[in-house]
Amino acid sequence: MAAYFNMETLKFLMFNVHKLEELLLNERYNAFDKESILLFLQSVADFSDQDLYPIFKEMDEKPAKFSEGKIHVHPKIKDILIKQGELGIIGASFDESMGGLQLPATVMHAAYFIMEAANNHIPGYAGLTAGAAHLISSFADKKYHEQYVPNMLSGEWSGTMCLSEPQAGSGLSDIKCSAKPLDDGTFLIKGHKIFISGGDHEYAGNIIHLLLARIEGAPAGTKGISLFIVPKYKISPDQTLVNNDVITAGDFQKMGQRGYCTAHLVFGDNDHCTGYLVGEPNKGLSYMFQMMNDARIAVGRGGAAIASAAYYASLQYAQERQQGRRLLSGGRKDEAAGPTLIINHPDVRRMLFLQKAIYEGSLSLILQSSIYHDREISEKENNNHWNLLLEFLTPITKTYPSEKGKLAVDNGLQILGGYGFCADFILQQYYRDIRIMSIYEGTTGIQSLDLLGRKVLMENGLVLKTMLAEIQHTISEGKMDERLMATAEELEDQLPMVEATLAHLIPIAMKGETEKFVSDATLFMEAIGTIVVAWQWLKIGITASNALKSSDAAFSASMLKNKLHTMRFFYKYELARNKSIFKIIQSDEVLTLAEDEAFPD
Amino acid sequence: MAAYFNMETLKFLMFNVHKLEELLLNERYNAFDKESILLFLQSVADFSDQDLYPIFKEMDEKPAKFSEGKIHVHPKIKDILIKQGELGIIGASFDESMGGLQLPATVMHAAYFIMEAANNHIPGYAGLTAGAAHLISSFADKKYHEQYVPNMLSGEWSGTMCLSEPQAGSGLSDIKCSAKPLDDGTFLIKGHKIFISGGDHEYAGNIIHLLLARIEGAPAGTKGISLFIVPKYKISPDQTLVNNDVITAGDFQKMGQRGYCTAHLVFGDNDHCTGYLVGEPNKGLSYMFQMMNDARIAVGRGGAAIASAAYYASLQYAQERQQGRRLLSGGRKDEAAGPTLIINHPDVRRMLFLQKAIYEGSLSLILQSSIYHDREISEKENNNHWNLLLEFLTPITKTYPSEKGKLAVDNGLQILGGYGFCADFILQQYYRDIRIMSIYEGTTGIQSLDLLGRKVLMENGLVLKTMLAEIQHTISEGKMDERLMATAEELEDQLPMVEATLAHLIPIAMKGETEKFVSDATLFMEAIGTIVVAWQWLKIGITASNALKSSDAAFSASMLKNKLHTMRFFYKYELARNKSIFKIIQSDEVLTLAEDEAFPD
Repeated sequence: MAAYFNMETLKFLMFNVHKLEELLLNERYNAFDKESILLFLQSVADFSDQDLYPIFKEMDEKPAKFSEGKIHVHPKIKDILIKQGELGIIGASFDESMGGLQLPATVMHAAYFIMEAANNHIPGYAGLTAGAAHLISSFADKKYHEQYVPNMLSGEWSGTMCLSEPQAGSGLSDIKCSAKPLDDGTFLIKGHKIFISGGDHEYAGNIIHLLLARIEGAPAGTKGISLFIVPKYKISPDQTLVNNDVITAGDFQKMGQRGYCTAHLVFGDNDHCTGYLVGEPNKGLSYMFQMMNDARIAVGRGGAAIASAAYYASLQYAQERQQGRRLLSGGRKDEAAGPTLIINHPDVRRMLFLQKAIYEGSLSLILQSSIYHDREISEKENNNHWNLLLEFLTPITKTYPSEKGKLAVDNGLQILGGYGFCADFILQQYYRDIRIMSIYEGTTGIQSLDLLGRKVLMENGLVLKTMLAEIQHTISEGKMDERLMATAEELEDQLPMVEATLAHLIPIAMKGETEKFVSDATLFMEAIGTIVVAWQWLKIGITASNALKSSDAAFSASMLKNKLHTMRFFYKYELARNKSIFKIIQSDEVLTLAEDEAFPD
Repeated sequence: MAAYFNMETLKFLMFNVHKLEELLLNERYNAFDKESILLFLQSVADFSDQDLYPIFKEMDEKPAKFSEGKIHVHPKIKDILIKQGELGIIGASFDESMGGLQLPATVMHAAYFIMEAANNHIPGYAGLTAGAAHLISSFADKKYHEQYVPNMLSGEWSGTMCLSEPQAGSGLSDIKCSAKPLDDGTFLIKGHKIFISGGDHEYAGNIIHLLLARIEGAPAGTKGISLFIVPKYKISPDQTLVNNDVITAGDFQKMGQRGYCTAHLVFGDNDHCTGYLVGEPNKGLSYMFQMMNDARIAVGRGGAAIASAAYYASLQYAQERQQGRRLLSGGRKDEAAGPTLIINHPDVRRMLFLQKAIYEGSLSLILQSSIYHDREISEKENNNHWNLLLEFLTPITKTYPSEKGKLAVDNGLQILGGYGFCADFILQQYYRDIRIMSIYEGTTGIQSLDLLGRKVLMENGLVLKTMLAEIQHTISEGKMDERLMATAEELEDQLPMVEATLAHLIPIAMKGETEKFVSDATLFMEAIGTIVVAWQWLKIGITASNALKSSDAAFSASMLKNKLHTMRFFYKYELARNKSIFKIIQSDEVLTLAEDEAFPD
């Protein structure tokens, strides 16, 4: 079986760096201990090895396909969904009272990370089903929970989120899908939804769409959007399933994730599509945000998982492929020694360490965000603190692994040279698959607006302040360890740059020049993302250094040393790029506003 | 017809920035004037519109395919090759005495740029045919020229270059393909060659392979490599074509350029494959370098062309797609105005200008290198000067458009959001196609070794010094124009950084620590490439500024202002990143040598 993730690193990050056992002391999670969690993850890893990885390439080569009103996906999907239900994956983080395992979301994300590294075309089905079920459980009338959720968590039924429409994309103000109230309290739904991941396939007994629509007469814009449950098949009073006028109009053919269907759905073309209102009218977007926030973490996780798989594939190639010579003094080639393994070439090592630094740093960031999420919901006395941190990290956790994950996979493919471009090798599939991550759930541009335009300003800067205090705490810890002092100081040197950048930007916002204020939000995201991941690497370094000192037998010394080495790599090659980026953002020259005389031509 | 390049910009770069008319004064080119060259380019543009662009998407969707010993390509290829012959494209830069048009290579590259922007799956056939023919004309016995070249320049026969072998890739020292001398002066060829672009297809009457092999008993390594003409069909004394034991074993299926075949060829499996030695034995690599140097410029050109096409596709989308709202004071959305064209969003403009800055800068660099080439071959009294400049620029001209072209196309795809990932839109094809450019003709890592390990040290630094003097000359010119003074100074500020970086690196080379010396060659390439393109942008700026002053009626004022704006964009967003990169290279911390205790795991 090909390596696509590293269980030792995952354990190290979860239990040592992020101290998961401390979280397990909270009442909500006290049914679990380290051992039971490792057993759960091992079962997911076995399932991924046996069921997910073996069909990964095949799903790309024989993509999901629409014909005669139906979308056909890989025939193994049916069993896989059921098995995910049986393993408890779909309901992993649900309350026990809702039929779930009540595991920390951190563990749920770790499980999906493994599955996505094995085959990123599949876990979306379960993830969206869980997200849709969670919306029903959280905000809908209890009867809907009873009608839908158990069959969703078991893997028999699927769920989706239906936001995008052809004319609007991410512009939710312009949603046109309509809901007409009927006398029985239900609604008649009518409209088109596009880009619906997992939107239709032959192996779900039913598909429960969580759909945004506008009730007739609702206020304009996002304040007039309501959330509905719209099942593909209605449950009739005698419990049989009847057609609910949800038509599949097509399946988008894509560059990557080709095995994962992406439907165009038409609701109510025959005027008998029933929707059930979730919660109150016109509050749909605020409910949907729960699912969208979770989904943003999930997208980042997908990016990290693909980068992990690409790393191990290129590492294996570099360890087996001989080419070229080591270089001797004067640039002479070591002809006596003959061809060398390419892992001995410095540039190949650089590309390997870059991948490792990005994927492990990204994974650590995902676990960090999930830990904050878990603390928020399990430590009521302090939950605002954890919520602030999660709010700040969410757009970054979505974006960093997606954007830098592309860079990592690009380097992985490059290691294989011409073979990397060929379909016989897997790198090109990772390269195509990961490209969607910086688009899903709001593009990088949209996430960057959220970070700079909302999160930085939120609560008069308290969100940002709380985040920086966390980072400063880690820096102080790092500075006490001689091995990490320089690293901690390099991170500390970043903080005045953040301040100077904000001292430049905030007055622009205060003057009301919003477009100018956010015009370089994407660069701001790039630099802040790197700082946040550098902070993760310092945490990893502190943990590795402590483990080396205590000669912690749980991990090999070579693994711990490699973590410290990769930390240094990240600081030397990635964090050091930030200084120039911050300078760019601080430039007074504005070149990208629509008011400019010049325009692209 | 979709826009995929801009003739006005191409003309401006050729005739105004690079002063092609001055070159035409040289005797070699005096059959041409501006008008005749524009007519030639217009005929290429018309051909591209009519024959190349319309089948671009189709060639991706129905890729070249191997079956029953043959590779099947798009049926229009036959006519296209002949038409390229008729238009004089294949022999464009050949001497008239050799059957060519004797156009400057600069014009030939401009013509291929147009064709590649229209459909990058096709021009490689003609380009490699021309390259192979040029090798025969330059180094082989005149009888071979007569036997092969006319049919190649007419488009009836194709040519290839056969370097890579399965076990060796770019490691030419390890070539195993063998050549056994026969009594009649010919050789018996035996061996495998892979990744042979245009290596076999049904529409070439004959395919003339220029193949590297080792004559029995030749010295080990690259000093024992000879160059052979190995036709698919031998010309028998009665002029009929007979099988020459060249077997097609397969066609590599790829992530991109799927319409362009990439063969695995087996020579001499039945022991009757004849090869004809080119020039002297064991000098094959030095001959092949002619073709490889031209091919490196051609690969960069391909990157620039795809980036051009992607830019215009995303620009068109941004000018037609409405989504989101303009932002007002306090971050409020301008709901009154309703949805806006996405070109009005600053982040979309940033992505458009980034593409434009990269593709136009890359195109200018390609023309710059070709001008040096043309001067080298047409100005005998000064040709060493031009050769030094071309030597320095060749690896950069290959790499910058390939690497930054990826970034440009990535931004183009991103502008389309979810649609960018979908097969219905063309951006995803450009994204896949361009990925090969940083691998073809030596990966970015190999080009970077050439730049830092060879070119910088070459002739005791004279190559670098000559290049920097050229750049300094442009800076001095720029500083005399008030509109460009700041820009010129920003470029001048880069030069001490280059010096400081070399002051750090050269002593390491002198100490004989070659691997350490070149360990960050790829970063050095990144920074130097950006400087070279910034130099091109300053040249463009000087030309645009002068034209504005003289109110040159040949170009619109808005086009000229947009050039100045894009120049500033490049300096603000791209050149400004260099400072950090140079600092990274100057770090004393070495993390990527195989001697390190740590390793990727």
